[in-house]
Amino acid sequence: MAKKLTGPILLVEGGAQDADLRYASGFTAPDPVVLLVDGRKRYLVVSLLEYGRAQRTANVTEVYTPQQLGLEGRARGRLSDWATALLKKQRRRSVVVPASFPFGIAERLRKAGIRVRVAEESLFPARRRKSKEEVRQITRTQRAAVAAMKAAGRVIQQASVDRRGYLTRRDGSRLRSEDVRYVIERTLLEHDCVALETIVAGGAQGADPHERGHGPLRAGQPIVIDIFPRHKDSGYWGDITRTMVKGTPKPEVTRMIRAVRAAQKTALTVIRAGVTVKRVHETAQRVLREHGFETTVKNGWGEGFIHSTGHGIGLDIHEAPSLNLTSTRLLAGDVVTVEPGLYYKKWGGVRFEDTVVVTRTGCRILARCAV
Amino acid sequence: MAKKLTGPILLVEGGAQDADLRYASGFTAPDPVVLLVDGRKRYLVVSLLEYGRAQRTANVTEVYTPQQLGLEGRARGRLSDWATALLKKQRRRSVVVPASFPFGIAERLRKAGIRVRVAEESLFPARRRKSKEEVRQITRTQRAAVAAMKAAGRVIQQASVDRRGYLTRRDGSRLRSEDVRYVIERTLLEHDCVALETIVAGGAQGADPHERGHGPLRAGQPIVIDIFPRHKDSGYWGDITRTMVKGTPKPEVTRMIRAVRAAQKTALTVIRAGVTVKRVHETAQRVLREHGFETTVKNGWGEGFIHSTGHGIGLDIHEAPSLNLTSTRLLAGDVVTVEPGLYYKKWGGVRFEDTVVVTRTGCRILARCAV
Repeated sequence: MAKKLTGPILLVEGGAQDADLRYASGFTAPDPVVLLVDGRKRYLVVSLLEYGRAQRTANVTEVYTPQQLGLEGRARGRLSDWATALLKKQRRRSVVVPASFPFGIAERLRKAGIRVRVAEESLFPARRRKSKEEVRQITRTQRAAVAAMKAAGRVIQQASVDRRGYLTRRDGSRLRSEDVRYVIERTLLEHDCVALETIVAGGAQGADPHERGHGPLRAGQPIVIDIFPRHKDSGYWGDITRTMVKGTPKPEVTRMIRAVRAAQKTALTVIRAGVTVKRVHETAQRVLREHGFETTVKNGWGEGFIHSTGHGIGLDIHEAPSLNLTSTRLLAGDVVTVEPGLYYKKWGGVRFEDTVVVTRTGCRILARCAV
Repeated sequence: MAKKLTGPILLVEGGAQDADLRYASGFTAPDPVVLLVDGRKRYLVVSLLEYGRAQRTANVTEVYTPQQLGLEGRARGRLSDWATALLKKQRRRSVVVPASFPFGIAERLRKAGIRVRVAEESLFPARRRKSKEEVRQITRTQRAAVAAMKAAGRVIQQASVDRRGYLTRRDGSRLRSEDVRYVIERTLLEHDCVALETIVAGGAQGADPHERGHGPLRAGQPIVIDIFPRHKDSGYWGDITRTMVKGTPKPEVTRMIRAVRAAQKTALTVIRAGVTVKRVHETAQRVLREHGFETTVKNGWGEGFIHSTGHGIGLDIHEAPSLNLTSTRLLAGDVVTVEPGLYYKKWGGVRFEDTVVVTRTGCRILARCAV
């Protein structure tokens, strides 16, 4: 167990993606920012362009521009100088930074005589347990994901099957992964959400869990649909997966679907505050094995149940806790996905995923999806 | 001028956003990857989940999984261990990394006896000059942006104005920034592009160049529409801005529009290979001044022309060269935005932006937009 470092926390961000920064300041911008979290006080440095908006929306003690910190010339555009000037103003000479902190800035701070230590653990462990408001925000995104999944289900349901086994639309054209993805993403947009990597992978494509899917879809084959949008205002993610089959699947695929459904259902019954994540993951593994599905790795290619059972979700799509083989214990307020899956090159992929909040006595699915 | 470091370049990425990594490997993934660029050889480490896709799509000498590098247990999930094992295999003990390299990983590499030096300059300066194929990709995204701008123009054109001066739709409801943004983003989606921060900012909101805009739009006020999508397949960005007014603007707003249009036009005539970026920026500044518009900063709030004239664009939305006050010279193949603007709290914002490729004799607008 690494010793928890204490001291002022310094965050820098160049691209509006940093969840810690958003969590600690309530601010997000397309431009670089520097944030110093010093006990209960929070100091933000933003460019002149962002100053007005930062003053209105950031939840911090004080907002500065490089100009206000007395910086001139090139220093005005250099985040290391923003940080150094801010630390000087606050009379701090030592900071704790996340492991992802830019190395170039850390080196410059050290040259300026500032002690920079990397936190081995989460800087904001409180992020893991979601407040009621956060659960509400994740649920809002998750509902958008459910609406998009239903829209995808309708498109597949309404398709016909031509003589060669391809799904076809009313106009006679073949229904492709790309068409289903468009319907999903348009639906998400109507709900103020955006998804960059939506998966609609049919047949053998689904055997690669990160293949987005492309080309015409066929009847009888499993189609893995994984939708993980982010709400454009709140920044909170949602995550849902279903596996659909048009027409009659091969018996092996039916068995895979039954096994994964059972693994998900059983894993969900195990989840409650105090249980180890290992127990949840091992439960899913056991059910899949009991259904006759083995996991193997050959020449770097895995088949079977080749990932963890789920992950925490919030301002990051993947955050603590991971439902893996560690002995981390679940806490009330954890929001996690539960997503066992099976992947075989011959048959394709099958995955079912819902997002739940952990409670003292069990867990609650944030947005139900009958599809 | 910093000395250019030579040696194997190490990149790590946790979120599919890194443009250098994509440029050097042709690969992008939602999961972490490690890339070593050693002269002409490129070695990629990806998780088991990504292995199949990386083998099919990455443009590298060799793809490894942590398993193939002999890593066990927790080391299999730790990027610093991936990098250390890869460097050991390639018999390298010294690497050059970008300034954005994660500090936590740099510290671990150093503890493992590896020399880690930060590059002060771009690791892939060749990224700046776009190949024909790259210009084609940026143009494709830019055309999507133009289509979206035209769709936004139609919505505003078709709106009526109610007695209180609000833009209204056929159903009698008020037209809001959010409605126009939805039309823009749906159009982008139809072109396989996505935009996360589209700006539709009316009236005083437009005076803050990064305010996305919200609420009902009014006649007579400038509406700044800035669309910067990324193509979902190629990863290349586009960028365009127009300022629209429904009905008759105040004379001051008409003067601002005339001045910014003139500044953009004149700046475009100055651009060609060999010219300094400073000359382009100073030209835009001069034209705006000649039209009677001064730039001031008071209490951290800037008014007038408060940003640079443009920026390079490619796999990053902002990349070299910036059209600022430095003496960098433009090169044939630079792709840059040209986007002078004026911002006054009393009147709002006016900005016009096109994206051009620099040639030996001038520049060419990638996708024309008559709106």
